Amino acid sequence: MKKSAKTPAETAIETRYVLAPHMVNALGTAFGGVIMSWIDVVAAMVAQRHCEGTVVTASVDTMSFLDPIYIGDHVILKASVNYVGRTSLEVGVTVNKENPINGRQNPTTTAYLTFVHLDNDGQPTDVPKLLLETEEDKRRHENARARVQARKELRKKIRK
Amino acid sequence: MKKSAKTPAETAIETRYVLAPHMVNALGTAFGGVIMSWIDVVAAMVAQRHCEGTVVTASVDTMSFLDPIYIGDHVILKASVNYVGRTSLEVGVTVNKENPINGRQNPTTTAYLTFVHLDNDGQPTDVPKLLLETEEDKRRHENARARVQARKELRKKIRK
Amino acid sequence: MKKSAKTPAETAIETRYVLAPHMVNALGTAFGGVIMSWIDVVAAMVAQRHCEGTVVTASVDTMSFLDPIYIGDHVILKASVNYVGRTSLEVGVTVNKENPINGRQNPTTTAYLTFVHLDNDGQPTDVPKLLLETEEDKRRHENARARVQARKELRKKIRK
Amino acid sequence: MKKSAKTPAETAIETRYVLAPHMVNALGTAFGGVIMSWIDVVAAMVAQRHCEGTVVTASVDTMSFLDPIYIGDHVILKASVNYVGRTSLEVGVTVNKENPINGRQNPTTTAYLTFVHLDNDGQPTDVPKLLLETEEDKRRHENARARVQARKELRKKIRK
Amino acid sequence: MKKSAKTPAETAIETRYVLAPHMVNALGTAFGGVIMSWIDVVAAMVAQRHCEGTVVTASVDTMSFLDPIYIGDHVILKASVNYVGRTSLEVGVTVNKENPINGRQNPTTTAYLTFVHLDNDGQPTDVPKLLLETEEDKRRHENARARVQARKELRKKIRK
Amino acid sequence: MKKSAKTPAETAIETRYVLAPHMVNALGTAFGGVIMSWIDVVAAMVAQRHCEGTVVTASVDTMSFLDPIYIGDHVILKASVNYVGRTSLEVGVTVNKENPINGRQNPTTTAYLTFVHLDNDGQPTDVPKLLLETEEDKRRHENARARVQARKELRKKIRK
Repeated sequence: MKKSAKTPAETAIETRYVLAPHMVNALGTAFGGVIMSWIDVVAAMVAQRHCEGTVVTASVDTMSFLDPIYIGDHVILKASVNYVGRTSLEVGVTVNKENPINGRQNPTTTAYLTFVHLDNDGQPTDVPKLLLETEEDKRRHENARARVQARKELRKKIRK
Repeated sequence: MKKSAKTPAETAIETRYVLAPHMVNALGTAFGGVIMSWIDVVAAMVAQRHCEGTVVTASVDTMSFLDPIYIGDHVILKASVNYVGRTSLEVGVTVNKENPINGRQNPTTTAYLTFVHLDNDGQPTDVPKLLLETEEDKRRHENARARVQARKELRKKIRK
Repeated sequence: MKKSAKTPAETAIETRYVLAPHMVNALGTAFGGVIMSWIDVVAAMVAQRHCEGTVVTASVDTMSFLDPIYIGDHVILKASVNYVGRTSLEVGVTVNKENPINGRQNPTTTAYLTFVHLDNDGQPTDVPKLLLETEEDKRRHENARARVQARKELRKKIRK
Repeated sequence: MKKSAKTPAETAIETRYVLAPHMVNALGTAFGGVIMSWIDVVAAMVAQRHCEGTVVTASVDTMSFLDPIYIGDHVILKASVNYVGRTSLEVGVTVNKENPINGRQNPTTTAYLTFVHLDNDGQPTDVPKLLLETEEDKRRHENARARVQARKELRKKIRK
Repeated sequence: MKKSAKTPAETAIETRYVLAPHMVNALGTAFGGVIMSWIDVVAAMVAQRHCEGTVVTASVDTMSFLDPIYIGDHVILKASVNYVGRTSLEVGVTVNKENPINGRQNPTTTAYLTFVHLDNDGQPTDVPKLLLETEEDKRRHENARARVQARKELRKKIRK
Repeated sequence: MKKSAKTPAETAIETRYVLAPHMVNALGTAFGGVIMSWIDVVAAMVAQRHCEGTVVTASVDTMSFLDPIYIGDHVILKASVNYVGRTSLEVGVTVNKENPINGRQNPTTTAYLTFVHLDNDGQPTDVPKLLLETEEDKRRHENARARVQARKELRKKIRK
């Protein structure tokens, strides 16, 4: 049975955590590994929903940490599919912190993760098509293509 | 007191973990977030040693997952400074898995992380110079420059 | 400055987790304490947002576990304010599991938690009013009142 | 082989933890989810001992948080069977904190959990009888009956 | 105010855990570090109660692992003071596993930990006297003295 | 196929952690159980490498805590085989803390762990020989023999 093509909105996820005292580093701000774990899980859930099946993380590209997160901050992750290749797909994640007292939000992290879709034998298999509906869908798709292109060019310049 | 310039070897770290059952995803292989956390901590330790002070993670670039890690595998992380800018530095991390029975090693992950060195007021401050001694030091430095250059070019192509 | 009255929708939260292997009990299904922790955090975030300030859990009432959750299931929590007293408020949480392959959802848990709003001295203080807009808001409010009433009657029958 | 009827004392458990720094919320007091996890585990152990077999948590009723717990406090949980239905049973848990310096104890939480006893096919099965010996056993049993009755009446008043 | 002398029974603790799936090593049996953590916490609680104040772990002597613990086993720790020196004290811990279905218990671990009692300035200070009442108290005290003596003799033989 | 004899250096491990805020006790220093867990894992990895197979922890002897570890300290563990019996082996672990700002190291813990090597049926089996090359290898081996001897003598003096 053929899997259906989907828009980014159909599989997008928004989720929210509180930064607890056991999640900080020696500076008292969010430990990078905690945020990375949340990003990986949320992005993988989106990729599973798009693929209607198993995915594995192939790479994390350009995860940027913009602003520290403190104990008690709400942390809001939004993830959606940006781009689909033959057997892989890129999911973008934006992380905002929200002050729970005054509701103010600030961007803290952005990340782009590539997943490979595996069949039941653990082999890479075809990813369902991505339907680009909105201008935002198209802008993200175009940017993801630029990242794919940049990685290809970079690989040529890297000396083994 | 001026901080001393250092070679990559002076601050490099090698560390080793076992993949325990509580560290796997639903597929039975290493949960990406666990490996990311280990990478972030090991890279930050190297950056602290080079800077003789506080550092914060600014970005993770091109973290690639090459081969799954299974319960009981030894996981070996090697991290060293590749490149130093004015207030930031790049640390490279390679992750290998080792079969503890036959000692065979396989590469599983590579990652490049950029840290910013902060002074006591939390402001970006000068990073000590990096001394390139070996051919390997120079190769890594050159590749890191190529990544810095590629990120700059990519930023121009990204449509906001 | 007086805090604004709010509808349940203004402070409602939806969040999503994956049940990982380290979250199960000896039967291989979700460990009750993990689900309880998620519920407590999500409900507290909603209560903070409604109160624009600090809250503490006063009680958990009628948390029901309807269907077991298995490794790999997505777990979706929805929380919103049901009822507001003078210094306390009730938040309702529904937990659904989603099969990430076919997208089917099933209810697994419902819970009602009461929080007390504390001022900066740690004393109970006035909770902003709740605006009931939709029929669903009113139904939930009425049911919450029935629970408050039932607890009062029960307390009379309990022999110390 | 028929399982033996038991008194509450035969299967009661007392256990003790220290509240560690990684177990607190942003206010510096015990995170609700940690206490809930401890309560769930301790109550389930009592239910297993009474049933001589597998149990699953069916519901948590009226868990009340009376007094905050601070880092370094000893936390003492006492759990015993209050009431036995055909395939389910209620376990009561009281949580006290103890100041380890002066030995003073204060009640912090009470909770009532209902478990269902499952046979080897995962189907609800008969729970061994409960022998009420002491006045305290009888008082707890009577109060548990009042809770069962109150839940039944409440269900009639809840509008779906 | 002088602190009172105490019998071992006055400060003894018994506590009980379930071995959960996230607590096992790659062999599927209890991870040593989990059991060691439980032993350290339980022994420290006993030492705090005897000293009516702060203690730090000075050493762990002869912790023996006799029998593996499996997922679902109940784990019962009993700890009490064996011996009191001027500023230090020895706590003995025995760990048993209990099959929750048939109630059978087996010894799995014994451990002897030495703590130092610290005053408010973090300096070693006098430990309250230990009252030996029962034959068992005296036997344990005598064995603890044998361990202290053996450690002294061993230290002479160790070549630096 | 016969397993090869090995020197301590061939299987030695050095590893490094940062003490994070969630790893401290109520005094703000490293929780003993965290350090014990790290020691157990590192020592087990060395024993696996020497045995080229499965090992289980049989005992921990004379683990001494010399100096407290604080949040942000680097913690360096070095482990190597000291002594080999017929089916068991002793691994020694030294733990140092390093101030990441000035690079100063201090010893904080030493530990000696005995492991038993198991075959595929879970039965004790022959451990490969240990080749003593350096003076340091011989000193450690001799000290390990003194510990084995001391334990034997102690066992005779312990009254059951």
